[in-house]
Amino acid sequence: MPSPMDEFRRRRAEGHARLVDTEHLGIKRFHRLDADAYADRSAEGRLDARTKELLGLVASAVLRCDDCITYHLEQCVSAGWTLEEIEDALNVALVVGGSITIPHLRRARLTLDELFAQRD
Amino acid sequence: MPSPMDEFRRRRAEGHARLVDTEHLGIKRFHRLDADAYADRSAEGRLDARTKELLGLVASAVLRCDDCITYHLEQCVSAGWTLEEIEDALNVALVVGGSITIPHLRRARLTLDELFAQRD
Amino acid sequence: MPSPMDEFRRRRAEGHARLVDTEHLGIKRFHRLDADAYADRSAEGRLDARTKELLGLVASAVLRCDDCITYHLEQCVSAGWTLEEIEDALNVALVVGGSITIPHLRRARLTLDELFAQRD
Amino acid sequence: MPSPMDEFRRRRAEGHARLVDTEHLGIKRFHRLDADAYADRSAEGRLDARTKELLGLVASAVLRCDDCITYHLEQCVSAGWTLEEIEDALNVALVVGGSITIPHLRRARLTLDELFAQRD
Amino acid sequence: MPSPMDEFRRRRAEGHARLVDTEHLGIKRFHRLDADAYADRSAEGRLDARTKELLGLVASAVLRCDDCITYHLEQCVSAGWTLEEIEDALNVALVVGGSITIPHLRRARLTLDELFAQRD
Amino acid sequence: MPSPMDEFRRRRAEGHARLVDTEHLGIKRFHRLDADAYADRSAEGRLDARTKELLGLVASAVLRCDDCITYHLEQCVSAGWTLEEIEDALNVALVVGGSITIPHLRRARLTLDELFAQRD
Repeated sequence: MPSPMDEFRRRRAEGHARLVDTEHLGIKRFHRLDADAYADRSAEGRLDARTKELLGLVASAVLRCDDCITYHLEQCVSAGWTLEEIEDALNVALVVGGSITIPHLRRARLTLDELFAQRD
Repeated sequence: MPSPMDEFRRRRAEGHARLVDTEHLGIKRFHRLDADAYADRSAEGRLDARTKELLGLVASAVLRCDDCITYHLEQCVSAGWTLEEIEDALNVALVVGGSITIPHLRRARLTLDELFAQRD
Repeated sequence: MPSPMDEFRRRRAEGHARLVDTEHLGIKRFHRLDADAYADRSAEGRLDARTKELLGLVASAVLRCDDCITYHLEQCVSAGWTLEEIEDALNVALVVGGSITIPHLRRARLTLDELFAQRD
Repeated sequence: MPSPMDEFRRRRAEGHARLVDTEHLGIKRFHRLDADAYADRSAEGRLDARTKELLGLVASAVLRCDDCITYHLEQCVSAGWTLEEIEDALNVALVVGGSITIPHLRRARLTLDELFAQRD
Repeated sequence: MPSPMDEFRRRRAEGHARLVDTEHLGIKRFHRLDADAYADRSAEGRLDARTKELLGLVASAVLRCDDCITYHLEQCVSAGWTLEEIEDALNVALVVGGSITIPHLRRARLTLDELFAQRD
Repeated sequence: MPSPMDEFRRRRAEGHARLVDTEHLGIKRFHRLDADAYADRSAEGRLDARTKELLGLVASAVLRCDDCITYHLEQCVSAGWTLEEIEDALNVALVVGGSITIPHLRRARLTLDELFAQRD
């Protein structure tokens, strides 16, 4: 039986494949721009990928998008952020975004349990 | 004649003083919680203040609050982030939040000009 | 010299007059529905106008619209809510909506000062 | 087994029936106003229904409401908009609303597959 | 078989337990502040719990968070608000927040059916 | 003395010049993507520029960004949409987005007065 995280990955991949299977240049280019925004630019005096994944997580949390939160949690764990650090970033989102973010943070916490269990 | 940044600081201080001059414990405690969220917790294995100011900036930008953006830009510049790094963080906000954030990013750019001029 | 509140009332009346000076039935009807939503319905076992003005205030605060906040503050003060009660309602908005509402609450506090001064 | 679109229609109809089965005039009138907003007004020098369904779709996409997006996609396909045209409208929503809309656009793409399959 | 409301309560409790099982003081304190915001303060000349639950409901509805709406509906029914009064509060949310709130109001209506059935 | 519209154009141009005067490729590319999204694609079986300006207007109105509304109103008037058609599009935004959009629609109405006066 697939875990919630596996199920998320499958649905995300399916939808993504359909969305970018298009002749529309704007949609294709936006996806490239989106990927580029999180690339490591520390060699150019800009930010590293790790920091930007945390920015993406907090932006997703205050805008209250579960899919985006799950995706960035996955990237943050891969990038080596610890549970304590991710919790502290989510606390910034909680204070900025208020109690309306709490249902998303509850789901994020369960996702983190699964992500750290898969990693170990 | 006061600069836009000076005028912002004066109005912010005036409103802040009135808002927290209250018997309401909830409002006082929220302000304390807000300040605490950006405190350095690196000694506890959490995030440093510098990283959290950048998180606060991106959260403010995607939620499109000029006053919050201006405040966190000020903190980010004080914390030593360079123009190139701040621009890269704002680019994450632009991609996540879309063109609706652009008017705020234009004003943020002019604010950055003033903040770096004041610092130098 | 007009006070901020007087200036707000003048601009609001000017824009309102232009917006509803239209042949568009939808726009006219929406304005009627909007006014009706705050009418006293306690005789029908529903809510009184006073409670609904407080609901309108909190909705405006979490959606972060200064003009709407100012308008509902005016109505709440007219309806007899005290400063302590309005502050408590705004605290609900602060907790639900987070620190991103704070700049609006600062301005709301200054508006309340003016409204209570005008009333007395 | 019901398709996702059939399941959406069933749940929507069930909730709709309960919501408008009320004595509350405001709720009833809002539903009428909502339906009227998309009616053909081209004979009065205003917009046709077709254009307004596209407006409703883009508004729903930038506000990130899956049920609203699905509903307007259904109306847009019925109104004769092609996949290429709908994609171009969704691209406007993507640029205005940013990457936070992408999970909704992925689901919209799968919905479009089903709607065009049902039509053909 | 658990009802939708029972299922909601189970998932909410599970996520809540994980989220607050933390060393992070900010997250713990925010939860306390959140609970306090709805406490009865009428003895201090502020608002009673009943009124504040209605404020929380309308705030949740205009911000379009189903979990928050469900939670506050439960509290409003416990606090003794009638269906007619809750409907009137939701109508304020509908007018302020527009048709984009309708899918949430449909689900809220079904939740109310279940809550009043459980109570009786 | 500059009109509100002239003043808007001056400030917008000033901020825009600073924002895109950057080495950051992401920010430059986003601006190109933004411009492209409104280009005429009717020759490719997609939408014409005129329709997409109306989509941009409604997206801006429901997201409640005055600068974006003003910009798209300008484009819509240039593209030949009449006052009656633009009003009908704004009515869709009003119904979808609710009364919280009304302060923006009031300002939009005054902007339309100025734009049609400048055109004639």
